[in-house]
Amino acid sequence: MKSSVKDVNTAQKAPVSSGTENTSTMDGNEACARVAYKLNEVISIYPITPASAMGEYADAWASAGQRNIFGSVPSVVEMQSEGGAAGAIHGALQAGSLSTTFTASQGLLLMLPNMYKIAGELTPAVFHIAARSIAAPALSIFCDHSDIMAARATGFAILNSASVQEAHDFALISQAASLRSRIPFIHFFDGFRTSHEIQKIQLISEDTMRAMINQGDVEAHRKRALAPERPVIRGTAQNPDVFFQARESVNRYYLELPAHLESAMQEFAVLTGRRYRLFEYSGSPDAERLIIIMGSAGGAVKETVAFLQARGEKVGLLQVRLFRPFSIKHFMQSVPGSVKSIAVLDRTKEPGSAGEPLYQDILTAFAESVQGSIRDTMPLILGGRYGLSSKEFTPGMVKAIFDELQKPEPRNHFTIGINDDVTHTSIDYDATFSIENKENFRGIFWGLGSDGTVGANKSSIKILGEETEFFTQGYFVYDSKKSGAVTRSHLRFGKTPIESSYLVERASFIGCHQFNFLKKYPVLQNAEHGAVFLLNAPYNRDKIWDKLPAEIQSQVLDKKLNFYVIDAARISAENRLGMRINTVMQTAFFAISGILPMQQAISLIKKYIEKNFGKFGEEVLKKNFQAVDEAVAAIQKVDLEHKKPRGIDTSASPLNLSYPSFV
Amino acid sequence: MKSSVKDVNTAQKAPVSSGTENTSTMDGNEACARVAYKLNEVISIYPITPASAMGEYADAWASAGQRNIFGSVPSVVEMQSEGGAAGAIHGALQAGSLSTTFTASQGLLLMLPNMYKIAGELTPAVFHIAARSIAAPALSIFCDHSDIMAARATGFAILNSASVQEAHDFALISQAASLRSRIPFIHFFDGFRTSHEIQKIQLISEDTMRAMINQGDVEAHRKRALAPERPVIRGTAQNPDVFFQARESVNRYYLELPAHLESAMQEFAVLTGRRYRLFEYSGSPDAERLIIIMGSAGGAVKETVAFLQARGEKVGLLQVRLFRPFSIKHFMQSVPGSVKSIAVLDRTKEPGSAGEPLYQDILTAFAESVQGSIRDTMPLILGGRYGLSSKEFTPGMVKAIFDELQKPEPRNHFTIGINDDVTHTSIDYDATFSIENKENFRGIFWGLGSDGTVGANKSSIKILGEETEFFTQGYFVYDSKKSGAVTRSHLRFGKTPIESSYLVERASFIGCHQFNFLKKYPVLQNAEHGAVFLLNAPYNRDKIWDKLPAEIQSQVLDKKLNFYVIDAARISAENRLGMRINTVMQTAFFAISGILPMQQAISLIKKYIEKNFGKFGEEVLKKNFQAVDEAVAAIQKVDLEHKKPRGIDTSASPLNLSYPSFV
Repeated sequence: MKSSVKDVNTAQKAPVSSGTENTSTMDGNEACARVAYKLNEVISIYPITPASAMGEYADAWASAGQRNIFGSVPSVVEMQSEGGAAGAIHGALQAGSLSTTFTASQGLLLMLPNMYKIAGELTPAVFHIAARSIAAPALSIFCDHSDIMAARATGFAILNSASVQEAHDFALISQAASLRSRIPFIHFFDGFRTSHEIQKIQLISEDTMRAMINQGDVEAHRKRALAPERPVIRGTAQNPDVFFQARESVNRYYLELPAHLESAMQEFAVLTGRRYRLFEYSGSPDAERLIIIMGSAGGAVKETVAFLQARGEKVGLLQVRLFRPFSIKHFMQSVPGSVKSIAVLDRTKEPGSAGEPLYQDILTAFAESVQGSIRDTMPLILGGRYGLSSKEFTPGMVKAIFDELQKPEPRNHFTIGINDDVTHTSIDYDATFSIENKENFRGIFWGLGSDGTVGANKSSIKILGEETEFFTQGYFVYDSKKSGAVTRSHLRFGKTPIESSYLVERASFIGCHQFNFLKKYPVLQNAEHGAVFLLNAPYNRDKIWDKLPAEIQSQVLDKKLNFYVIDAARISAENRLGMRINTVMQTAFFAISGILPMQQAISLIKKYIEKNFGKFGEEVLKKNFQAVDEAVAAIQKVDLEHKKPRGIDTSASPLNLSYPSFV
Repeated sequence: MKSSVKDVNTAQKAPVSSGTENTSTMDGNEACARVAYKLNEVISIYPITPASAMGEYADAWASAGQRNIFGSVPSVVEMQSEGGAAGAIHGALQAGSLSTTFTASQGLLLMLPNMYKIAGELTPAVFHIAARSIAAPALSIFCDHSDIMAARATGFAILNSASVQEAHDFALISQAASLRSRIPFIHFFDGFRTSHEIQKIQLISEDTMRAMINQGDVEAHRKRALAPERPVIRGTAQNPDVFFQARESVNRYYLELPAHLESAMQEFAVLTGRRYRLFEYSGSPDAERLIIIMGSAGGAVKETVAFLQARGEKVGLLQVRLFRPFSIKHFMQSVPGSVKSIAVLDRTKEPGSAGEPLYQDILTAFAESVQGSIRDTMPLILGGRYGLSSKEFTPGMVKAIFDELQKPEPRNHFTIGINDDVTHTSIDYDATFSIENKENFRGIFWGLGSDGTVGANKSSIKILGEETEFFTQGYFVYDSKKSGAVTRSHLRFGKTPIESSYLVERASFIGCHQFNFLKKYPVLQNAEHGAVFLLNAPYNRDKIWDKLPAEIQSQVLDKKLNFYVIDAARISAENRLGMRINTVMQTAFFAISGILPMQQAISLIKKYIEKNFGKFGEEVLKKNFQAVDEAVAAIQKVDLEHKKPRGIDTSASPLNLSYPSFV
């Protein structure tokens, strides 16, 4: 390779400051929708999981009369399907409006016909997508990039956000670049992992938005509108005489787009301090092994690269942010010349293809660079699939891929994260390999859908995010039944930015909000040595031990857990809160975790109860306040001295200690 | 390259015999629909140009009670849109029926959600597609492969037919291979070029169909039906625990498909004598320059390769028939090891992509072969776009591409067939380069939409195809207005198979059915020296000369044309045929072309009039028969001796001698 990578060490963006000023704690859907709402005039929706919240936020804000940066209240219209939503946008754009939508999966498929038109007519717009699997062997509401890839031929630019902060930032950057370049954008982020992950982010001010959106570009868009007073013809039928030429006449817009996007990113960096690049390299300046990836999984790779690099390994990560147009020039400039082997990871599967899309692009980039004498030889390039339908992607898997790149006969077209015992495509990995930051709080809370556990944890994350200097992360695992099934809340917080784009592996805190889960799920499997274990149980500290399954007893003792019980069901019932034990368990969590001084925690819990439940009236607030006060008194630490596990009785009804179905 | 290409010289399929037994003359839509109808039970349609005729044939045949090979009359249902048609098929397939549809362009886009499901559930079916541009800068009813490419991620196998015969044959082969492999197929051919081109083909008998369709495979499909008496669950929602594994569990079906398709092709060869391969090579066994292509354009390349090879050039053609699954193994086995440079031609444009789909697949195949030590070095590989929206693709362009492959700095990502004067992607070509077979009749007939010209030419092609030993080809150029606009019929026939997949370039016969066209269109531009020129004019042989535009006079004299006039409008009017001059002009064509003895021609014309117009009653037949008889007497040869062109008067209203808008 002839090009050098001078700014390898400055490629990482500056972390968000850990203060609370201009920050807020929210999920990716809200982070994106907040910007999209401010920048558009017609918002045409047909909500679909996991993008629904974006449309719902927009609808609620418009109902409340919230204005966009142009001073008007966006018109939010819900159509009969995603096909209609896309048609409405196409019409609005042709009338000179700024228009957007939010969708995913099959919803995006139904938008394709209009998308070819919107792009073909060089119409600026941004579609915000919470990427989700397309239903194939089965429907799935979870994340992969098959929907995005199904839209890659439309002519839309495709930009991806790897985090909640980026979902906020790129919503603005993509809109600015689209208006400038006239190419519409798909701005996507990973469904659930980013759309539903809660993080503390730095907010973009309206002033910054106004500064980024060039008024001249907006005016130019309006002037291109189909309007009686400026008659032009567009959207006609064409015959073979001119169609091909017209199709090629857009080339320069695509060639110019990467530069426009770079400018927008630079301008954004000046305004906010957050610096992004089309391709973002991190790792050893002289990396020999490289992983190339898109989306949230970049977080897991980045952490692992830093870990391995610190141990002297020459490894690197290249995050592809701008997938379309694919700028071979920018890509090649971002790859260290020292790289000898590369794994390109696609979060999609195209059965029967010669290779998945990103893998083929990287092959193409290198093949053309060698052909054009930009580079002397091809590195070894492997393609792999990971994370289909939100299958976990962890540092252990990243390490296994880097190991594979060193093998004499590495496997191409591999899968990682599953055990493919049919066609043997899988790479093995060490499931116990963990590099989680021990300085951070890492909690897993087991609850039942609708018992309030997730809501309580969201509240806790908000309290910690908005009232302290901590960086925070909350991620909530449901299955597609949502209500009535098991939920697990994964909370992290600490003093450094949290990029762990995977579930908590080694928990410093386990909350089990349903006593009967102990017999059904491996509740303590991820508890680390000395972790805190908080159990909602109908037994006090004296009686609890004998009621525990033997397996749990062993784990509590072996791991030397700090074990607390509270009868949250009783306290909630006595305060007429029904099955909603969230207030009690949240209070207990703050009481024993000691993150905040007790009195401060209690007053903050009450403040957020007022915020969340105030609309239900005084009576509800009073009941909850009472439950908070009683909870503090009701927590009991279980004395483990002289406790022994009884033998595991294999004749009893077997414990199902495998992972529940959503893992 | 390690593999040898032993059977290069046997790779071409045997030509259809030039007899009339078991042959029929029809277009690609009918050729395909005839087989699809016979093999299916539920045919769900929402007709769209240029695939409409397939659905319409099926509808008509079902209404007439025609049975399929299983002895039942297919149920033909028209839905509310292509989305509904695809949903109905999905349902029918899940109920164990054999089901198909016909579509194109946006119609195919609307089927995508169901297609992912049908493929994901491993359900055999064939969708027959007359490929058409997806509307982007403008709508277009014409041909390219953008619709097919938009479906390449669905998991459907994709097989393409390059000719009318293949559209007939592959409809059967794909159905057999789909039932065997459980992978659904897109079987596509080029809209208009193949769907509407008329050729004499060899028909597949019902016995052959029954022999090809394995009854065990059909039974297995029926047994997989969702039925109360054999309860299974399918089409569920899945969570992250199993979706990825399930998605990978289909791998072996895709790995096995190429072998199943090969078997089906072999079996078909035994039954019919027509031999096909997944990748079909033709040209020099030691070719150094190679063109790789899909679809009808293979005809133009094949002719040109044969022409250049005969002149000692080491060139070859690789036709990709099975595009998905893309079998790198079969591909590499089909490429001569001697190849040094390759042009991969895609009939689609994906703005912003690193390269078009077939180009990226070929790069991937070679890169992996070099990486796996199957081959030592990469050849030079260029990607090019051609033929968008039925832009002509001619031997002159093929030659230019082969020339480009020899240049020291060849252009990558080129376009051919247009002059891209914006981003300068185009390769120049010699528009006068022609290798058309002079032994063949080559006629161009200029008519007005609805004047009957196209119908008359279709009738002539049928007469020649079905009543003589000739190979025949008819292709009809309309613009998207269809009725009331200019039409041009391009007819070829002769003693050898006609693979010229492009318009007649050098015509041995020009028919101009509208006198006023002489002032508007370059009617004689493609007439070769000594060609016949038949003009419908309101002037007799004595008066006609002075009524001709000067440009026409010059061409008639310079090219020494055999010039005939007939007042077809008068004869038609006198016989109360209105503006339909077709019967008169068809008779005149047979009278002066001398292809058949006059008496035989007249009786055949009358026979086909009876066939085509019999349903309109005796009176209509009588009027037409009378017109035939009068036409013979009314043809007048114009004596060109002592004729001179008058000077072209540039002060007169300017002649628009540019090509009409549909060229």
